[in-house]
Amino acid sequence: MARIPEPVQNLVDAFSRLPGIGPRTASRLTFYLLKNNEAAALQLAEALENLHAQTHLCRECFNITTADRELCDVCADEKRDQDVICVVESPMDVIVLEQTDGYHGKYHVLHGLLSPIEGINPEDIRLAPLINKVARGGISEVIIATNPSLEGDATALYIQQKLADYDVRITRLARGLPIGGELEYADQNTLLRALSGRQKMV
Amino acid sequence: MARIPEPVQNLVDAFSRLPGIGPRTASRLTFYLLKNNEAAALQLAEALENLHAQTHLCRECFNITTADRELCDVCADEKRDQDVICVVESPMDVIVLEQTDGYHGKYHVLHGLLSPIEGINPEDIRLAPLINKVARGGISEVIIATNPSLEGDATALYIQQKLADYDVRITRLARGLPIGGELEYADQNTLLRALSGRQKMV
Repeated sequence: MARIPEPVQNLVDAFSRLPGIGPRTASRLTFYLLKNNEAAALQLAEALENLHAQTHLCRECFNITTADRELCDVCADEKRDQDVICVVESPMDVIVLEQTDGYHGKYHVLHGLLSPIEGINPEDIRLAPLINKVARGGISEVIIATNPSLEGDATALYIQQKLADYDVRITRLARGLPIGGELEYADQNTLLRALSGRQKMV
Repeated sequence: MARIPEPVQNLVDAFSRLPGIGPRTASRLTFYLLKNNEAAALQLAEALENLHAQTHLCRECFNITTADRELCDVCADEKRDQDVICVVESPMDVIVLEQTDGYHGKYHVLHGLLSPIEGINPEDIRLAPLINKVARGGISEVIIATNPSLEGDATALYIQQKLADYDVRITRLARGLPIGGELEYADQNTLLRALSGRQKMV
């Protein structure tokens, strides 16, 4: 049985290491690039090299920003509400929230969620700077926008406790039925949460 | 609305250009690499750069081989049947056939299939070298292993006509029900082909 040439196999392997990409997809991508896309392959290579080299974390909120700037777009924008902080797990959450165009405050990116099972403790994520920010004052609301999961709940609870002594409103994103979803297909926990969180129609 | 930093957006875009990777998957891959995988990102970048730089086509069969060699593994292997050529569309087809461990002849990679609709003519793919190889003699069988599709059929027919005057057996991979498949779910064309190609049980 003839072996796959090493440079080809190396790329298949590198693609396979990405989440959600199995060996078959990795092969397909590799042979797509091999066929007639040297430019696409080199473009992707360059983007990968620049990803870390040309970015770092915003000094204020730990969101991703270009390496030539201290503050991210949001933190640099003086027109945003300076007294509201939305706490998220990852920079990607910032992007999806920004895409809604419905939030005009600042962010704080934790870069992880508490998870006793995986051994992720408060000091392993960017929690302390959030507490410090609130302690310095000037913050009226902290919106906890962690995922509605076990880890997201644990992290939200921890933050709530840590901030309990400060004069700040602590809220969490509403949980319930997703818009466009069907009751029939909602899981039990979502339904229970939708029931207990039911709101008066006005 | 805050914009995504350019180095991040560039990688999302580069991933999105790959087949089967939508903007959402592209974002997920990018943020996965961004989170804590600078090594993985650079490894992937290196593999992408080497893909074309360190490979070229085998002089004989046009399969992919490392740039430091003239012949691919199969063509260099004198123990393989020298008088049988299996004609495939792409180097990936060679790999899947090799993985069966059931074929011991040589290959010829066309790098495409005839497609009048897409304007792919005989001179656009590696057809002439195949005809020449057969014309030089010493080949007893040409197995056409193009896909069982419109283009695969057209290409097979064209090759058959071109080789009709030579003393060579021309065969094509059997088409019929896939092993483990169910009659109930087979499409009409496959069923018709399985019927017309039915074989005597021995």
